[in-house]
Amino acid sequence: MSHTDRPFTLADIQTPALVLDRDQMRRNIALMAQAIGCSGARLRPHVKTHKSVDVWHDVCAAGGTGGITVSTLAEAEHFFAHGADDILYAVGIVPAKIARAARLLKAGARLTLVVDDADQARAIAAAAQAEAVVLPVMIEIDVDGHRAGIRPDSAALITLATLIASDPALHLAGVMTHAGGSYGSSTAAARLAAAQQEASGCVRAASRIRAAGIACETVSIGSTPTALAQADLAGVTEVRAGVYTFFDLVMAGLGVAEPGQIALSVLATVIGHQAEKGVLITDAGWMALSRDRGTASQAVDQGYGLVCDVMGSPLGDVIVQECNQEHGIIGARAPGARLALDRFPIGSQLRILPNHACATAAQHAHYMVLEQNEVIGQWPRIGGW
Amino acid sequence: MSHTDRPFTLADIQTPALVLDRDQMRRNIALMAQAIGCSGARLRPHVKTHKSVDVWHDVCAAGGTGGITVSTLAEAEHFFAHGADDILYAVGIVPAKIARAARLLKAGARLTLVVDDADQARAIAAAAQAEAVVLPVMIEIDVDGHRAGIRPDSAALITLATLIASDPALHLAGVMTHAGGSYGSSTAAARLAAAQQEASGCVRAASRIRAAGIACETVSIGSTPTALAQADLAGVTEVRAGVYTFFDLVMAGLGVAEPGQIALSVLATVIGHQAEKGVLITDAGWMALSRDRGTASQAVDQGYGLVCDVMGSPLGDVIVQECNQEHGIIGARAPGARLALDRFPIGSQLRILPNHACATAAQHAHYMVLEQNEVIGQWPRIGGW
Repeated sequence: MSHTDRPFTLADIQTPALVLDRDQMRRNIALMAQAIGCSGARLRPHVKTHKSVDVWHDVCAAGGTGGITVSTLAEAEHFFAHGADDILYAVGIVPAKIARAARLLKAGARLTLVVDDADQARAIAAAAQAEAVVLPVMIEIDVDGHRAGIRPDSAALITLATLIASDPALHLAGVMTHAGGSYGSSTAAARLAAAQQEASGCVRAASRIRAAGIACETVSIGSTPTALAQADLAGVTEVRAGVYTFFDLVMAGLGVAEPGQIALSVLATVIGHQAEKGVLITDAGWMALSRDRGTASQAVDQGYGLVCDVMGSPLGDVIVQECNQEHGIIGARAPGARLALDRFPIGSQLRILPNHACATAAQHAHYMVLEQNEVIGQWPRIGGW
Repeated sequence: MSHTDRPFTLADIQTPALVLDRDQMRRNIALMAQAIGCSGARLRPHVKTHKSVDVWHDVCAAGGTGGITVSTLAEAEHFFAHGADDILYAVGIVPAKIARAARLLKAGARLTLVVDDADQARAIAAAAQAEAVVLPVMIEIDVDGHRAGIRPDSAALITLATLIASDPALHLAGVMTHAGGSYGSSTAAARLAAAQQEASGCVRAASRIRAAGIACETVSIGSTPTALAQADLAGVTEVRAGVYTFFDLVMAGLGVAEPGQIALSVLATVIGHQAEKGVLITDAGWMALSRDRGTASQAVDQGYGLVCDVMGSPLGDVIVQECNQEHGIIGARAPGARLALDRFPIGSQLRILPNHACATAAQHAHYMVLEQNEVIGQWPRIGGW
């Protein structure tokens, strides 16, 4: 708020702005804590969605967490500087970044990396040796053909585990997977199946490594859809999830949450009317909402976001139809239907629920934090790599 | 570069990173300066694409510019602080932001706003009166039904011009339009037609206002496709364009530029191979590339970007097929085709040309600037509103 005094009401906020309903966020955090609490596993929350130390403090306050997951070394460095000392960097690292990882390890961080390739493991081992550190690494397991990782039943798994276990610059901390395929599961049964596949695949990989005589302590799985699916987590030691703190329309489209559980929105102001078309224009374009169209492939396409009144209640079938950089075009979802524009005077505010919380939040440098729809503070978030 | 000394070669850059080929950018700037130079109009470059004072200095060095165009007040404040004093804020303003506009005017900026609605004009006039300033405003004209504005032939145009001219808190500076519809013009003939429609619609609006006895000095049009179309600009006083500084794959898909003219790319490092699928994984996901899929609706879908070697030469039919937050999946464009992964060892670098330069650049806090593929500096860019 470099331009005005700190706002205390929504009406005082310069738009577009990223608004966080802390009351709802805390309910989401409690929901996940409860879901994981009985499983015997610990929650290792992913901070890539929020990138906010303040949000992480609210996650910790709900208890039951064991370290954090990060998607960038910038997150690792930032959260370590703010007290997180057990950090899983869940994206394959390149040798050029090992010097930064070594700096964190030497400063006392328990930083763990992921690998899924023998050449990669040898390259980072050489870099670790040059930095005189021992790198804890986890092998990434591919349970659903989604992205990265080694198949649980592959010969390459044991080859890689053996290579890591025998390299003095590396320590095999365990196995991890991410059931990214669960984002295509639109029924509770499909999510449960994805969660069981995620858990059993990762547990099987750990068992095969142990059967080869190699220690494999941690079995780490996770995604928000699978973490909430109440699968049998026997053998799993930790669960990673991130987007549940805020939820979003993609999660709502999967049935993982209701739109009313979405804690994040973009506050926008009406800047124009197009009476002929029955649409209105706001100052929240893709720069504020992101270009994410994650609901386009779901049963209900929410455009660039579902429109709510300024208090956060969805207006029914009103969506952001199209975006330019700083213009959002809002209209009726139904083709040919027109909004009654006198309900939305120029200068009035609306709130827009995001398709994808990670992407929308990334367009902003801070959160305007609400409790009972009053502004209680401004929380920074970090970016970069 | 908080983590390393300043890099001097591409190999020293921590990835993902936004890379700007300054040599190519200067050629693009010269191309536009030449296109506008003979028309009698002046170029009012849009800074929303680059949001960089350093880039703007290179634009100014090519001469012929008259002020700048901005998409946010944050840009207006930043560029004014760095010497730009003639600024058109080309997004409809809300009354809540008039205090900031007034602060700029009182500090000496020639800031002009746009309006397209009588209620909006009255509301900002009231706010201007409260701030004791006279606001220069331009009426936004809708030449192609694309977004905002008033039709050139509408009765509402004269009503609004009269309202503005008679309000002591407002000064009618002129008319402006943006032929956003030109982004759908994929032939030179269609772009020329869009450019002629843009120019003639805006000139006609100005003529009607003048015929009503109201001064209308500035006639401002522009978009990169129309600005390069060599239309007859008689009666047009200024042309706005932004993306031409960098160009991008959307512009290339329209035929406005060649891929080789794109000055902006994302430097990425290979972090994994998926041998079964013949794809590789890099550390440039949507956080580095943006979620923009602007080429999806064009004849050639470039996925999330066209892949080049580290020196910036396109590899032919290799594209970013899919993105997660920090993972980019790169493969052959042709369905079923597989990349020869040994050409792309883990740890090697690639460069990715963006679909939409404005969106990709917005994911980054600075540019790594190259001359002859050597790093000559790091230029910051601003964000926020």
